[in-house]
Order: sequence, then C-alpha cells, then structure tokens
Amino acid sequence: MGYVLDFAEGDGSMRDLLGGKGAGLAEMTKLGLAVPSGFTITTDACRYVMEHNEAPPGLWEEVDEGITRLEKSTGREFGGSPIPLLVSVRSGAKFSMPGMMDTVLNLGLNDGVVETLAEWSNDHHFAWDAYRRFVQMYGEIVMGVPEHLFQEVLTDMRIARSVSDDSDLDADDLEHATRRFQQIVFAHTGKALPTNTDEQLRGAVGAVFSSWSNRRAQDYRKVNGIPDDIGTAANVQMMVFGDMGDDSGTGVCFTRNPSTGEKLPYGDYLARAQGEDVVAGIRTAASLDELARLHPQSHAELLSVMDRLERHFHDMCDIEFTIEKGELFILQTRAGKRTATAAVRIAVEMATEGIIDRKTAITRVDPGTLEQFDRPRIDPAADWKPIGRGLAASPGAAFGKAVFSADRAVTLHAASEDVILVRPETTPDDYHGMVAAKGILTSQGSGGSHAAVVARGMGKPAVVGTRGLLVDVRGARAVIGDHAISEGDEITIDGTTGSVYLGASPLIAPSDVPQLETLLQWADEVRTLGVRANADTPTDAAKARQAGAAGIGLARTEHMFLGERTAVVRKIILAKDETVRRAGLVQLKEMQVADFEGLLEAMDGLPVIIRLLDPPLHEFLPSRLELEQEMHRLVPLKQSITGLQEMARQVERWEEANPMMGLRGVRLGLVEPDLYRMQVEAALEAVVRRIDAGGDPHLEVMVPLVGTPEELRRMKEMIAREIERYSKSSGHELKVPVGTMIELPRAALVARELAATADFFSFGTNDLTQMTYGLSRDDAEARFLSRYLEDGILESNPFQTLDRDGVGRLVRFATREGKEANASLVVGVCGEHGGDPASIAFCKEVGLDYVSCSTPRIKVARLAAAQAELESTKADV
Amino acid sequence: MGYVLDFAEGDGSMRDLLGGKGAGLAEMTKLGLAVPSGFTITTDACRYVMEHNEAPPGLWEEVDEGITRLEKSTGREFGGSPIPLLVSVRSGAKFSMPGMMDTVLNLGLNDGVVETLAEWSNDHHFAWDAYRRFVQMYGEIVMGVPEHLFQEVLTDMRIARSVSDDSDLDADDLEHATRRFQQIVFAHTGKALPTNTDEQLRGAVGAVFSSWSNRRAQDYRKVNGIPDDIGTAANVQMMVFGDMGDDSGTGVCFTRNPSTGEKLPYGDYLARAQGEDVVAGIRTAASLDELARLHPQSHAELLSVMDRLERHFHDMCDIEFTIEKGELFILQTRAGKRTATAAVRIAVEMATEGIIDRKTAITRVDPGTLEQFDRPRIDPAADWKPIGRGLAASPGAAFGKAVFSADRAVTLHAASEDVILVRPETTPDDYHGMVAAKGILTSQGSGGSHAAVVARGMGKPAVVGTRGLLVDVRGARAVIGDHAISEGDEITIDGTTGSVYLGASPLIAPSDVPQLETLLQWADEVRTLGVRANADTPTDAAKARQAGAAGIGLARTEHMFLGERTAVVRKIILAKDETVRRAGLVQLKEMQVADFEGLLEAMDGLPVIIRLLDPPLHEFLPSRLELEQEMHRLVPLKQSITGLQEMARQVERWEEANPMMGLRGVRLGLVEPDLYRMQVEAALEAVVRRIDAGGDPHLEVMVPLVGTPEELRRMKEMIAREIERYSKSSGHELKVPVGTMIELPRAALVARELAATADFFSFGTNDLTQMTYGLSRDDAEARFLSRYLEDGILESNPFQTLDRDGVGRLVRFATREGKEANASLVVGVCGEHGGDPASIAFCKEVGLDYVSCSTPRIKVARLAAAQAELESTKADV
Repeated sequence: MGYVLDFAEGDGSMRDLLGGKGAGLAEMTKLGLAVPSGFTITTDACRYVMEHNEAPPGLWEEVDEGITRLEKSTGREFGGSPIPLLVSVRSGAKFSMPGMMDTVLNLGLNDGVVETLAEWSNDHHFAWDAYRRFVQMYGEIVMGVPEHLFQEVLTDMRIARSVSDDSDLDADDLEHATRRFQQIVFAHTGKALPTNTDEQLRGAVGAVFSSWSNRRAQDYRKVNGIPDDIGTAANVQMMVFGDMGDDSGTGVCFTRNPSTGEKLPYGDYLARAQGEDVVAGIRTAASLDELARLHPQSHAELLSVMDRLERHFHDMCDIEFTIEKGELFILQTRAGKRTATAAVRIAVEMATEGIIDRKTAITRVDPGTLEQFDRPRIDPAADWKPIGRGLAASPGAAFGKAVFSADRAVTLHAASEDVILVRPETTPDDYHGMVAAKGILTSQGSGGSHAAVVARGMGKPAVVGTRGLLVDVRGARAVIGDHAISEGDEITIDGTTGSVYLGASPLIAPSDVPQLETLLQWADEVRTLGVRANADTPTDAAKARQAGAAGIGLARTEHMFLGERTAVVRKIILAKDETVRRAGLVQLKEMQVADFEGLLEAMDGLPVIIRLLDPPLHEFLPSRLELEQEMHRLVPLKQSITGLQEMARQVERWEEANPMMGLRGVRLGLVEPDLYRMQVEAALEAVVRRIDAGGDPHLEVMVPLVGTPEELRRMKEMIAREIERYSKSSGHELKVPVGTMIELPRAALVARELAATADFFSFGTNDLTQMTYGLSRDDAEARFLSRYLEDGILESNPFQTLDRDGVGRLVRFATREGKEANASLVVGVCGEHGGDPASIAFCKEVGLDYVSCSTPRIKVARLAAAQAELESTKADV
Repeated sequence: MGYVLDFAEGDGSMRDLLGGKGAGLAEMTKLGLAVPSGFTITTDACRYVMEHNEAPPGLWEEVDEGITRLEKSTGREFGGSPIPLLVSVRSGAKFSMPGMMDTVLNLGLNDGVVETLAEWSNDHHFAWDAYRRFVQMYGEIVMGVPEHLFQEVLTDMRIARSVSDDSDLDADDLEHATRRFQQIVFAHTGKALPTNTDEQLRGAVGAVFSSWSNRRAQDYRKVNGIPDDIGTAANVQMMVFGDMGDDSGTGVCFTRNPSTGEKLPYGDYLARAQGEDVVAGIRTAASLDELARLHPQSHAELLSVMDRLERHFHDMCDIEFTIEKGELFILQTRAGKRTATAAVRIAVEMATEGIIDRKTAITRVDPGTLEQFDRPRIDPAADWKPIGRGLAASPGAAFGKAVFSADRAVTLHAASEDVILVRPETTPDDYHGMVAAKGILTSQGSGGSHAAVVARGMGKPAVVGTRGLLVDVRGARAVIGDHAISEGDEITIDGTTGSVYLGASPLIAPSDVPQLETLLQWADEVRTLGVRANADTPTDAAKARQAGAAGIGLARTEHMFLGERTAVVRKIILAKDETVRRAGLVQLKEMQVADFEGLLEAMDGLPVIIRLLDPPLHEFLPSRLELEQEMHRLVPLKQSITGLQEMARQVERWEEANPMMGLRGVRLGLVEPDLYRMQVEAALEAVVRRIDAGGDPHLEVMVPLVGTPEELRRMKEMIAREIERYSKSSGHELKVPVGTMIELPRAALVARELAATADFFSFGTNDLTQMTYGLSRDDAEARFLSRYLEDGILESNPFQTLDRDGVGRLVRFATREGKEANASLVVGVCGEHGGDPASIAFCKEVGLDYVSCSTPRIKVARLAAAQAELESTKADV
C-alpha cells in the first residue's frame, strides 16, 4: 500500500493511518456527501520522514497522481485554467491536538493563477485577498518569516486608507500588499516563494509533518499522554469558497435545536462569507429559512444530508457547509454541543424514534447538569457585568435587598421583601436569617463552610469566599471592589457561576422538561444502586421523595438544634443546675419528637436514618473572640459585662484547638450520655406516634464518629435498652436497625470488628476525606486547595470527587471486610460524594448498596447510578 | 486419680489441677523446704460440685485420709490432743484472683480443743483469740452471718475496756466474745456452729468452692478474661503460729537487697507476731541480724533456703516465713519486687554469676524504668505532702522560685536563681523562659501539649494540666487549692509523679548504676532494630550519642525558629515588602546553617535526618484573642493600638479552624517555596562546611505531611536541584537521601507510590494516630481520653502505646508496600511511640529498620529493642 489514499478509499475506522480528520473526511465521503475531494498522506509517511529526515521513495509521485485524480474529479486545474484548483493542506493526528500543528490554505496560487481565479470568480478583490493570505501563510509556516513583518505592511496600509479591517482594503491595495509580501519573503529568506504549485505542495506537506515535532505540540502531547512516535497525517483537499459572489455562502447547522432539543433543523447561513465569519459572528447570520428562500435546492440537499448524518452517527449533528456558486459542500460534521435541556429531550426522543436504544439515551446526558433544572438562573440573554466573583457554593440565582444581619433578614422578609443575607461568614446564629433570605453571600468560607453546606441543604443560591468583598456588619454596609453596598440596595447572586451583580438581574424560571421524567424512569429500570436523600426537615424529605429518593440516608439532627432552639441548647450546655439542665433536655426532646415524626411521615414506608448529634457543643456557643469584642464595645458604654464574662468562661471550657477532631459524635454521646439518650427517646417516641396514627415508619439510628468497636457496642446497648423500653410501654414490637458512620480512617480499618455490631455502615466521605488527607476542608479551600489544583499537584478536588487511591482504598477495604463479617450489612455513602457522578461510579464499583445525597442531587444520582450500572455491565462482558 | 493430692505429690507445673497456690506449695515442698504440710483438693472436685451441686463420690473419704496423713506427718491431732492440728482452707485457682474468693483460718477448734491449744501454747490469750477469730470467720463465710453482728460485740467490748484494738482485750474478754459469737451464729442461722472438726472442714471446703461463683469473682473473671468453668482448688494446710511465745515470730526476707540490688540477704523479722503484723508495719520490725542473734539456727536455715530458692527460681526471691516455737516454716515465695536500680544490678550480677544467661538478664529489666536513672528525684525518705497534682509530663524533679513570665525567668536565671516557670500553658513565645527554667508547671495542657513536648525534649521536669491551679499572669501570682504562690516563692515539682510541693524539697541525684552500661551492651549485641534520637540541638545530639543513639532520626527545624528568632520569623511572615522578606530569609538561613553544622558535627559519621518546617506559620504569631485582650487593656490607657490592629489583621489572614489539618508541612513548602528552599540551602551549606572542616556529615532531608506522591516528587526535584548546585559550587559530590514522613493515613495508603520517590520513610506516629482516630491529642487528653481509659472504652492511650488494630494496620501495610516497591527503602518511626517499649515490640514485629526517640528514651529503646528481638526469636522457634 502506498502513502496516499483518496478520501473515497478510506473510512472512519482508519484513524491510525489517516489521523482523525482524514478518517472523518473519508467516512463522510463514503456516505456520499458532497465533501470537497482530496486525499490523505498517511501517518506512515510522517513517521518515515521523522526517522529518515527525507520523504519516502515515491511519495511525491503518489502525491502528483493524487492531484491528477483530484483535477479529474473536480474539473479544475492545479496551477492552471479555466478553473484553478486550490487546495488546503492540513495536519491531522490520531488524537485531536487542536491548534498545535500547522495548516496552509489557498495553495496553488501564483501570479498567473490569481488572474485566472479573478476571471472565474469575476471578483478581483476575492482573488487578490486569497493570494495575499496564501503568500502570508506560506511565508510564515513553510518559509519561517516572522508574522510581524507582514502585519506591519497591513497596518501601514490600513492607516493610509483609514479602515479598520484588512478586508476593507480594495483589490489594488491587496495586490500591492501581496507584492510587498513576496519581497519580504525574498528579503528574509534569500529565496523567492515558489511559483510552481507542485513545489508549493511539497513545501506545505513537509511543513505539516515538521509541525508534529514543534515545541508546543511536544508539550501538548506530554501533558495529554499522547505518544511522540505516532506522527500526523496531512490532508490535501480542494478549497471551496463561500465568498465568491452572491450565489456563494457558508453556514453551520444542527440536526435538532441545540438549545431546546426540538426536532427541527436549526442553523445560521451567511451569504458571501467564509466559515470563519460565521463562527466569529462578525455579521448577523440569517436562519436556514433564508437559505431555503435563496437556494431552495441546496437547502433541500442540506436537509437530506442532516437526516442521513443523524441516522448514521445516531446523534444530533453539528455540520459546517459552504455553497460555492450554488453548489453545496459539506466541510465537517461532529456530535453537536447542546444545552442540558436539549440533551434530555434529544436523548429521549431519539430513543422513542428508534434511532438509539434506551440505554444509549441514558448515557447521552451528563448527570451533573440535571441539578440546573430545578433552579432559577440569570437570563443568559441579559448582558450583565458582575461586580465580583466568589465560589459557586450552591447553584441557582436570586436577587433581593442586601441585609447584613440575620435579624434584619427576618424583619424585611416579614415585610414581604426579598433579601440577600451578606455576612463575612455564617454560623449557627445566622440560621434564622438564612431561612428568611433568598440567597447567601459571604466574603469568607469555602464549598464546605457553614454557609455553603446549609444553603445547599436549603436549596438556596449561595456565593461564598467572594474575592474583594469587605463586610462591615456593624455599619450595615459592604464594599466589593469600587462598589459600595448599603442595606436595602438590590443585589443579585448567581450560585451556579459565583457571580455577584448590582441591581436585580432578570431571572428565568426552572425549565420544565417533560422528557426528564421518562429518562429517569429508564435510569431507574437499569440501576441497582439505591438513591436516598440527606434531608433534615419534613419539607425537604417530601421534596426528596418527589425527586425519587428511596428513603433518608442521613438526617442531621444537629440542624434541628439551630435557629431559636439554640437558646435551649445553650441552656443545657451552660446549666450549672441539674434541674435546669433536665428541663432543657425535656424541652428539646419534645421538639425533636415533632421533627422525627415529620420525617417519618414524609418518608412513610421508606427507611429514615437519623444520625445522632455530631458536632462539638461549642458550635452552639458564641466564639471567645466575639465575646471579647462585644465586651470591648460595652465597657466604654459603662454597661455590665458580667454575663458576658461568665459566658466567656464557659466557652473557654468547651473550646478546642482542632474542633474537627475533638469532643463530638459518639464521644459526646459517651461523655454526656443524656443528650444521645434524649435523641433516641425522641426518635422512638416519634415511631410510636406514627404507628399509632396508622403509619409505617422505618426508623434507623446511626452513630457518628465511631473509631472503636467498643464505642459502637456501648451505644448499641443503650439504644437496645430504649427500644425494649418503648416496645414494652407502647405494645408495639419496635425494630430499629443501628448502624455506624464510617468517617474515621480507623473505623474503616476495624470495619470487620464493627460489622459484628452494626446493622449498616454509612461512609461519611466528607470527614473521611478530611482525616485521611489530614486536610481541614474550610482551611484548605480558603488557602491552598485551588493552588494545588491549578499547579496540578492534585488532579481533582477530593471533596468533590472521591479520591480513589487514598480514601477509596479505605472505602473498598471496609466494604469488603464489613460484608464478609456480616452478610446482611447494608452499606451506603452519605457524604457529598453521594451526589457526584464520578464518585457514584466508584460506589457502584466497590459494591455499595446505595448513595445518599442532598435533595437537589437526587436526580443527578439516579442518572449517574444508571450510567455506572451500564459501565459495569459493559466491563463484565 | 483421686480428688486429693498431698503437697508432696505435686509440683509447680500442675496449675490446671492444683491451682496456682497449690502448685506453688507443692513445688516448695518438692524442694524440701519446711512448708507446713497439707493437701490440695483439686479443681476437678470443684467442677464436679459446680455441675452436680454435690460433692463427688468418695471426696470426703479422701479428705479424711488426707487429714490422717497430715496428723501422722505433723504429729498433731485434728480435733484432739496433746498438740491440736489446726488448718487453713484457702481457695486457689489457676489464675490469680486476689481477694475474690474465700478463706477460713484456724479451723479445727471447738470448746475442747481451745483448752488443749491454750495448754500446749501455754498462752490463753493466744488460744482464745484464735478461737474467737475462727468462730467469726466460719460464721461469716460458711454460715453466712453478716459481719457487722460480730463487729458490734467487739466494738462494745473495746469501749467497755477503753482499748482501741481487739488484740488488747484480755483472754477472758476474748472467751466471752467467742461465746457471744456462738450465740449470734445460732440466733441468725438456727444452727449451731459445728463442733465436729471433720464437719467444719467439709463446710469450709464447700464454702471455698462456692466462692468461685460469687458475684465479685464472676465480675473479676469477666474483666480479666478468665474462663468461668475452670473452677478453683482448695488447699488444706497445717496452721503455724508466730505469735505463740517468745520463741515464735514471723518475717519477710529478700534474697538480695530489693532497693540497691546488692547481693546480701535482706529482711524484716518480728518476734511474737503473725504475718499480717509485718505487712501492716504496726510494729517496727527488726532486721535479719536480730534474727541471727535470737535464733541462730533458724537464721542459718533461712539463709540456706534463700540460696536454694534463688538458684531454683533463677531470680531474686521474696520469702514469707514463720518460726513457731523455734521451728522455721516457709509460707510463701515469689519473685521479689525491686527498684529499677536493683533490677539492673541483680540482672547483670546474676548473669555474671551464671545463675541466668545474658538474654534472660535483658528480659529482667522493665525498659520503661531506665528513664528514671538520668533524672534527679525527690528523696523518697522525705515525708512531704504535695499541695497539688497534675499530669506527669516529663520525669524528674526540680525546685526553684516561681515565676509567671518567660522574661522574668530569664532575668532571675541571669541572676543565678533557680526558677520554675508557672504558666496557664506554654507557647513558642515562652521558649526562652523554658530554657532558663529548671522546670515547668502549667494549669492547662496534656502529655502532648507544647509544655510537655518541649520539656521532654529538653529533659526538664514538667507537670502540666494541674488540677486546681489558677494562674494570674498579670498579677504574677497563682493559687492552688488553699495555697497562694507569689513570684519568688520556692516550689518543687515532680515530673515523675505529677506532684507539686511548696518549698524546696530535698532531691537526690541521678543514681549511678555501673551495671547499666553492661546490660545495654548486651542488649546492643542482641538487637537488630536501630535506635536513633529525636534531637534538635547540638547539645541534645551529643547527649543522645552518649546514650547510644546511632544518628538523628528527627531534627525538628521549627524548634530552631523559636526564642529570639521568632522575631525574624514574624518579620518574614508579615513582610509586605519583598526586600524585607528576603532579608529575613537570609538572616534565618545563616542561623540555620550554624544549627545544622552543630548537629552534623555532634553526629559525625552517623545519619542526621532534618525535617523541613512542619507547623503552620501562625504558630509563630500571637493569637487573636491575646491581641484583642491587649488592645482592650491599652485603650483605656489612651495608648496607640494601630500596630496591634495591623498584627491582628495579619493573624486573621493566617488563622485556621483546624490548624492540625491546615497549611503546614509540605503544603507550606509548595505554597511558600522560599522557606523550604532556604532550609535546604542551609542544610547543604552546613554539609559543605563540615566536609571542608574534615568531617563526615551524613545529612538526610525529610519532607513532612506528605499525602500524595506528587507533593514528594516536586519537593525531591527542588532538593535535587539544590544538591546539584551545591555539589558544583563546592566541588564535593554531595549525596543526600530524601525521604518522607508517613503521618497521614493517605500517605500510608499510597506507600507503594511514595516509595518510588522516597529513599526512606519515617512514621510520624503522633500525627498518624491523631488523623487515624480523628482525635486532636490536646483536646482529647484535656477532655475525654482519661474518661475513655477509666471506662474501659480504650484499653490504652493510643498516644503512648501504638494502636495495633488501627494505626498499626496502616504501619504494617505501608511498610510492606514500601519495601516491596523499593528494596533499599529504609523505614523507621519517629513519633513518641519510638520510645515506648510495647510500641517498639510492634515496630520490630512489622519489620522496621529503626526507632527514633527523644534523648531520655534512648536507653529505654535500646533495651526494649533487645527484648523485642528475643521475643521474636522465641516466636520463630
């Protein structure tokens, strides 16, 4: 086999030999599409050149024969008349390396051919512009003339003519420029630009092959893991021109609407234009309807091509085409980019139409995009400029009046105002304000900070860690860059992008995509991995169930300790008197019973895992620094600070150097047993009430921060005693599985021993990641995690996508050990990773039973679980 | 075989059948010692009784025969005359269960026999006291009469006679009491106490067997893991009496001096006394010399027994003996308790004498006790009462004038005063004060707090977390309980016991035990596990080398950033101007070069591992709270706080919620590369200077807090570049191994990948334990770790003894993976566990190459490593 293959001789499978572009052109040619003819010089030739530093024997003869065939099939003459054949010479390796290698266009022109071209096109301006471009490109790429030498000529000329664009120069100017370019090439290289078109072609092919070895291509391959020795192909293809008169033009079209997914061809057409003009959007393009009016036949032909391509590639296609003197050419096609909405609609409708099967439809939608569907967003049509940018902590957009305290948020909300709560960072003290606000904006914090986690849980937009935002809480004002924000000023935040705007930006409502439910039903039919919700309130639980959650995998009871209840919690913590303490506990218990009843009712018939109190108690107290500052403020006012001093003493008592690793979770449950017992009593009381009300509650109790089997054994004993007591007193035989979080590395390491006591495991991958990495998420995201990601020290944020090599090994180990020791052990994950598609794939791979994630991620998880299932089935075959 | 074995029939190996006590008595009998005769009723009998609830057939006949043999061998008559045979009936299971089961003494008395006893002993008081005791004991234990009924009688009688002790009652009183006791037994049980001595014996044996199943014995077995079904034996033994006249007495002796180890018999003897009297120390005992004077023959006999016992048991023995009417009886023998000094001397001398071999000598000393040898301590003879107690954080005792600030410590020290630095807790700011002080006393903190760690490193006594100590730093005073301490008051602290005293307590100097060096040499010959030092200063390094360290396993460079250098470090951290920052770095580098030179010189020819900066930078800044309080103080004084406000802003910038898991170690090295580069340069500069000075430096560089292979790769690249640069500029080819701490669980999990880059691993088991458990040591020890240990949730403090099940699994895994991937990888441990004997055993077991520990622990580690070696060799056989 030789080194040259016509497009008609290859097909899409021959990427090794023809490169990606060559194989694509061959495939389209094979489909009978009106692809401009041409041939590919194979990667074999490139490899030969690399090795021997000269063209393989017979190559140029084969190329000449290829040109001859091309002349024959196109009816044009290379370097001749009446219709001159111009060609492009493009690189194209097996793997896409966009922009890394070289291309020469309009090859085949010389002082004679340019006149023929002008005659045939009847357009001097067009002909000389083509020639000018060719000389410039060839001079640069093949002959190594610095670009700026050409640019200077054009700049002078534009100034002289008072025009801003090169194409506004007239034909004479372009001719003049071309002559100057030829002189520059000669002056710089000592050689004239070849007038022989065969020689031009050899030069261009050689340059394309050389460009495989240029520095940036080498760097690109190194970064992307592409082998250095595979070489590139060179594609020689007839040039067609959309700018050769009124019966020419160029366009881009999609086989379906890429924005809505509607099954209607959609596209842009520009008369008298080259492909770049459409892409650059310099002129306003017309629709395909306009094309139908201007060129009914080409339009009909294009529709037919679109139909064939979609059926051939089984996907919505994006097609570049050119009409040259009334003749339609197809230049390129690929899978079309589309919005999330369109992706869902296209996938479901194509499956319904029989173009793809349901499984393929499931794989066609990026699960991560589903979260957008339920959130309002800033109208992309609005041309707004953000005044600042922070971390996109909770998606969706919101606007309202800026307020700087939780109390003001509540007051304005009560007066039916929309508010955005702006704080340096939020704490449990701000919870009631967060409930009242439409969105949260903070200057501090990260994706794992209080503001972010709580806002995500509430499904409210939040932007945190906003650069340049300074918040003056006492003065009720803020600045961001040069912009001042006072209380009551309207601002808009976009938690999907992290942008902050002044004023109320127009929002568009969540999109209603009827096909989504169908797609998710198909996903449910495929997947075996369960999906539960992390939900703390009955409202959230109901929403989660609506979104398809099969129960609650994590109800964080501490979130029930916030808002106005903080006062009760403080009373319990600070009580010096046992009676006061007991009274507080009773009060809190009654509240918790109602909480749990609501959750169990919302998830009637489905499992509800309640996690006992997790954070350290001092999270419910003010900080010492705050107290000190408050005292500092009061003293000059001659106000009493005795109460504050007493509070400061208590706070000091509970303070910890590293609260993340302190007295929390089961440790608190063992050291202060009243709290946990109260919670268990409240949960069981709620179960009894639900049964009495005719419900079907499935309570499960989860113990957090367990590190040793003994901790779990003791808690399970306590819980078992309470279950027995409530079973007796209620007359119902209560069955309540007791399980443990696996969130400490040690828990994973002793999983076998824990499984002897646990009915279920739930990986708390947030904390497990923090401990395994020894990485405080808040501190790290604020300070150096972004740096690590930018510098490539970490490939992905381990708090977003589960770290397979480290944390993942523990998850895999603990799952295996746990299930071996206890065959009925149910194992799930309830960290934020439970809503991350890549992590869900890992969960499926290691054999977990379910993932649990926040309500807005339920649909994401359902789809991702189905994709993971399909992936694992594929791997099985 | 029957159910009864005479002592002469058994031996020490028959613990299953005879129980521990029975086997011991048999062994001594077999040796021909004058053990009071008797027999053992086997555990088989007990098990039969447990199962059938009645005595096995023939048991009582066998017992009767045993008594008959006993009568024959002793020449005494059970229940008869002229010499009555009294016996004790004691429980004795295979495993020691001290005080859990029952014993009956003086059995064989009735109204007749008591008269015979009085006649034979010629001592009515003695006879009636024995009878009174018997009735009381039998009544309680066999017949179940509550003790208080008997006590009330005695109390009334003591009051009537105005005496304080029962034994001060006269013979008539005792007879009267005995009669009353008999009536109480009858009144309470409806039965008379048996007068038939055979019947008495059966009752007592039955009661002993029953006591196996009493509640406290069951609880004890549960806690100590002793099976419930093995039962106890019952030992019936002739009673001998040391209080039967002037030719009787009792004593305890040691075959060598238990305090000094000197090879001289040592002991106490009390004439006319029972064994309890010696133990209770009620009367002042005479020495063995007195015994020689009173009973030369018994004394000679005793010396001979001592010699035989020592040779038989190959150890220093503790012997209880009684002389009854001039006749010597040996009651018990066991390995004698001894001081650390004595243990060393005895072990070495016995090996020299050929009584034991060297390996046995090595196993005879508790390695943990060696740390005492180098520290002064409070004279145990001084009868001082502590005024408070805290955690024994660093051993040794010290006294001096109390000071409450580091600066005052330095001032007084300069005036040649001894001072004790008293602080709420210490921080890097106090370092210069700690250097100046003789000892440290704090009210806060734990064994892992700054004060404890630094004091241990300096080898200074420290007591931390002292209960009831309130320190008023500004007022320069403290209170502890009711005692006030002002600046300049003399106080004494004992870091071995945690006690705090008012005044200057007499101290005794470190003991000079010449045998210790011999023992350690033997240990070095045996061990294969290396021992290195954690040392940060040339002085400490020299001391460590002196103590036998084969290099430095960990030099914490951050300790070199303390004291007056903190100012330079702060300059670097807070610099807004690059020039200022650079100047600071240069200044610090020069200091570090000198530091490193000193270390390399002290350890010339041996490896010195320098760990790059580990803690977060804000550790070198004051806390925000401190700054706030200081501003609070200055404002009313109309002083400027601008500087403090600026500092507070900077501190806020660096502050972290969980500094343990924040921007420290290699993270800092990557984000602020100047610091690490400066340290590497300084270390290489020091190497070059040492070579130029004719030295033999073996520098190794260690990177802390590595979690991903990429972090290590980048640091190694940087270090390699510097090594190349210094090699070139100096003309010496520098060879500097680069390794990593393994202190994050993730590092252990990716050990295989890390080993590809690392020349060595060093397990930082302190942090590894913290991260694996998710346990902040300071917080945990202050708050709940003691509770966990008391409640048995944890069996040992994982910061003292390596947690085998959790952290240990990671250590084992990482060692195996690392060594598999890189056969030349050197693996050690440099956490505090490196000086803990149990952890050292584990290190040996998993195949580490060395342990590195603080200087005072070097000898501990050498001995423990040898013991671990012997243990593992034993396991191999």
